[in-house]
Amino acid sequence: MEPWRTGITTSDEKSIFIRGYDVTSLMQQATFTETIFLLHQGRLPAKEERALLDAILIGVSDHGPAAPSAAAARIVASGNRRSLEAAVAAGVLAMGDAHGGAALDCMQMICDGVAVARREGLSLQEAARRAVADARTEKRRLPGIGHRVHTEDPRTRVLFEMARARGVARDGVAFMQALQEAACDQIRALPINIDGALSAVLYDLGFLPSVGKLIFIIGRVAGVTAQVMEEHTREKPMRVRIPVIYDGPPPRDMK
Amino acid sequence: MEPWRTGITTSDEKSIFIRGYDVTSLMQQATFTETIFLLHQGRLPAKEERALLDAILIGVSDHGPAAPSAAAARIVASGNRRSLEAAVAAGVLAMGDAHGGAALDCMQMICDGVAVARREGLSLQEAARRAVADARTEKRRLPGIGHRVHTEDPRTRVLFEMARARGVARDGVAFMQALQEAACDQIRALPINIDGALSAVLYDLGFLPSVGKLIFIIGRVAGVTAQVMEEHTREKPMRVRIPVIYDGPPPRDMK
Amino acid sequence: MEPWRTGITTSDEKSIFIRGYDVTSLMQQATFTETIFLLHQGRLPAKEERALLDAILIGVSDHGPAAPSAAAARIVASGNRRSLEAAVAAGVLAMGDAHGGAALDCMQMICDGVAVARREGLSLQEAARRAVADARTEKRRLPGIGHRVHTEDPRTRVLFEMARARGVARDGVAFMQALQEAACDQIRALPINIDGALSAVLYDLGFLPSVGKLIFIIGRVAGVTAQVMEEHTREKPMRVRIPVIYDGPPPRDMK
Amino acid sequence: MEPWRTGITTSDEKSIFIRGYDVTSLMQQATFTETIFLLHQGRLPAKEERALLDAILIGVSDHGPAAPSAAAARIVASGNRRSLEAAVAAGVLAMGDAHGGAALDCMQMICDGVAVARREGLSLQEAARRAVADARTEKRRLPGIGHRVHTEDPRTRVLFEMARARGVARDGVAFMQALQEAACDQIRALPINIDGALSAVLYDLGFLPSVGKLIFIIGRVAGVTAQVMEEHTREKPMRVRIPVIYDGPPPRDMK
Repeated sequence: MEPWRTGITTSDEKSIFIRGYDVTSLMQQATFTETIFLLHQGRLPAKEERALLDAILIGVSDHGPAAPSAAAARIVASGNRRSLEAAVAAGVLAMGDAHGGAALDCMQMICDGVAVARREGLSLQEAARRAVADARTEKRRLPGIGHRVHTEDPRTRVLFEMARARGVARDGVAFMQALQEAACDQIRALPINIDGALSAVLYDLGFLPSVGKLIFIIGRVAGVTAQVMEEHTREKPMRVRIPVIYDGPPPRDMK
Repeated sequence: MEPWRTGITTSDEKSIFIRGYDVTSLMQQATFTETIFLLHQGRLPAKEERALLDAILIGVSDHGPAAPSAAAARIVASGNRRSLEAAVAAGVLAMGDAHGGAALDCMQMICDGVAVARREGLSLQEAARRAVADARTEKRRLPGIGHRVHTEDPRTRVLFEMARARGVARDGVAFMQALQEAACDQIRALPINIDGALSAVLYDLGFLPSVGKLIFIIGRVAGVTAQVMEEHTREKPMRVRIPVIYDGPPPRDMK
Repeated sequence: MEPWRTGITTSDEKSIFIRGYDVTSLMQQATFTETIFLLHQGRLPAKEERALLDAILIGVSDHGPAAPSAAAARIVASGNRRSLEAAVAAGVLAMGDAHGGAALDCMQMICDGVAVARREGLSLQEAARRAVADARTEKRRLPGIGHRVHTEDPRTRVLFEMARARGVARDGVAFMQALQEAACDQIRALPINIDGALSAVLYDLGFLPSVGKLIFIIGRVAGVTAQVMEEHTREKPMRVRIPVIYDGPPPRDMK
Repeated sequence: MEPWRTGITTSDEKSIFIRGYDVTSLMQQATFTETIFLLHQGRLPAKEERALLDAILIGVSDHGPAAPSAAAARIVASGNRRSLEAAVAAGVLAMGDAHGGAALDCMQMICDGVAVARREGLSLQEAARRAVADARTEKRRLPGIGHRVHTEDPRTRVLFEMARARGVARDGVAFMQALQEAACDQIRALPINIDGALSAVLYDLGFLPSVGKLIFIIGRVAGVTAQVMEEHTREKPMRVRIPVIYDGPPPRDMK
């Protein structure tokens, strides 16, 4: 069998190296968040970059037991008391396109928008107006804009302020704000939601679009594990009683 | 349906609170590691506690593509190119009793050993000797001791030094070291492995045994996500060719 | 890398053989249920055995959207619209000790009981009385007995009648009935539930205890896939609104 | 909370009904395969339809330990000895677009091709030629055609013969054969692979495209469970040693 190639981690009997750094040095001098950055980008972040990634991971870490990731994890924990990892994995599986996955679509849109602006010599404002117009023509929802509960997500404002104050905000933040303005002109006033805000900042931190989704997963796993522990320590097995209405065929006989 | 109770996170239209702290304050003033501690213990850690939890999360974050969690995630990523969360979840599922799960068993052993010492007025040394003797009588392996590759895991030494230097080491570290000495006397020289070291320190940080397993999962998810990205960006779909030998029944006819 | 050994399936450019049978012969002359039996036992079942395995797989195939396996699958499907396999996998993960897993415990109890009877020359009735007495002494629940809804599970009666009428019922069915009688004497009247009934019949069909759990999974996956499709075709994304009560710490400031 | 609607299964204290049929009647008079058909289509299949669905489920049930679904399940089983469901779920997760998922794409192509033919009054041959030409223009691979090992998949021939002999073959089989002929003219001789064959027959049996993927999962879960059992009964924990080559950065110091 062909050996598997990797540029991430290697080890011998005496040491483990992550992206070239001895893991014991990282343990003594780095934080977990810096290691997450290192694993995905191959370099340690500057202090300002670390602060932004911490803010993103904290911002998505938990949203209560009714979020699909937490609810799926709790129901699995309720039927499966001996396998904590099964419950956590079910929580990870709930993070699809409709829950947390908007970051992937949104980062892709930012990448495309910035690329179009560069290629065609447009301003980011012009590229954003075009993105909104295209979405309207094709009747697509714009990722990163709008929220079913918050009119303005408090996490968005904080992330953008931090990104500006620390000199991290660049094309990603600028494009998302231009997009919001263009949406305001062409559709209606819509807030930048947490997916949009973290996509903008992750783009400016140099992450690939797919990694946006993975960062959401890393952050939310922290909350899912806490939800699973609370289910195990406070609740009985098989406790969930979802009300059901049956509207299928009436009783019938087999021939 | 009965509402679900939670003491972890609550939100309204304007704010999200984790264990009572406004998430935007945490984003600006805390780190992700502090938030992980907060989610599981309900309080923010002291600076020294944070340093130890960071070291633990970093220490388990990745061990290369051949660890079961990474290998399972990569094989799923190889057959399933559109669902990153499916690959990460498969990695989580590989973290069972034989891979990463020793922390749970080891923390339980430490809890039991310390409890026995307190109840019966024994020293931790006496309790550890009894634990070794019991394991030998019942022909059980001692969790947290011994390693298939490293004679002394470099991460163990660093964790214990950090725990002592920062005043975090207490009964957990003391018990594991007593256990190693007792094993040395009764069995043979055996190193404390990474599961044993992180169990000792997590016990001293106040975590429940089940949470030991979950902390391992939180840390390793960081590495698994990087392994999945590397698979996607460097390798072709369905590339894995595991050599197989068939030793079942020869071809036969149905009657 | 060492080749992986297998005695199940082999293939070359022209053919695939399952346990020695050409898969195209199986496709033309066997049923899926016979193939499940073949995969797990290495031989094709007699007609009577096949009828019982069909009855078991049908009997566990679905129990509505509120069963943990279906509910977990639906919540994942609600957050993750693009990955059907993620939703099905979450359903599989919910099948733990408390949901469907009783079959594993129950088959193990039957194995142990029959082995004790043989070794010590007891009748199955005596072995069953001892199993009930032991469970009471150790304050353990008896697997396979009792049900939170049905006083007598209709599927139990049908499985046992079929097993007797087709000459499949042997020590497994006899032991479970002896256990029920012993429980009636020593505890109170308790029905044999579906886990108990299928455990008894699976034992008599020659399956190992762990396989009992896997047969439950194979059967229920059929229902979970139908639940996932219904979620996708009838419901909107992110539709689940579980009511939540927060009883954690009140808002507090970071120092 | 809004009750969940379902038209699949309902139960009261005395009975369980699947699509209106008492489950105990199904257990006595139906097969598991008929129940799978019933769960997904709301009616019991004719004898000929049942034979084809059995053949499909058998045809995909196992392909040895090196298929991604089996390999992922075995690696999880190797690290996680106590949770059979975790290993099976990992196997399910490997069934993505590149492994087993072609059925979904292929059924969608058949649906589209037949719809185009009807709408524009074309023959299926003309619609197939257009589908091949479009794929070439857009440099897309055609799903259901071509195979990396078999020049002609033996399962394809058997499925099509059975479908014709039993009067099940209709537009789906006709379209796939027209597609193969058009590909032969415009590209080169390419076999219809198992994904293409089962897609054609599943279409003719009245299944929706997404269900094609789910039928593959239901069938393959049978094989995955057998692979997991073989791993548990024949192999040691943590046995997999994948060879690795590291080509990342050399050791470096933290500043």
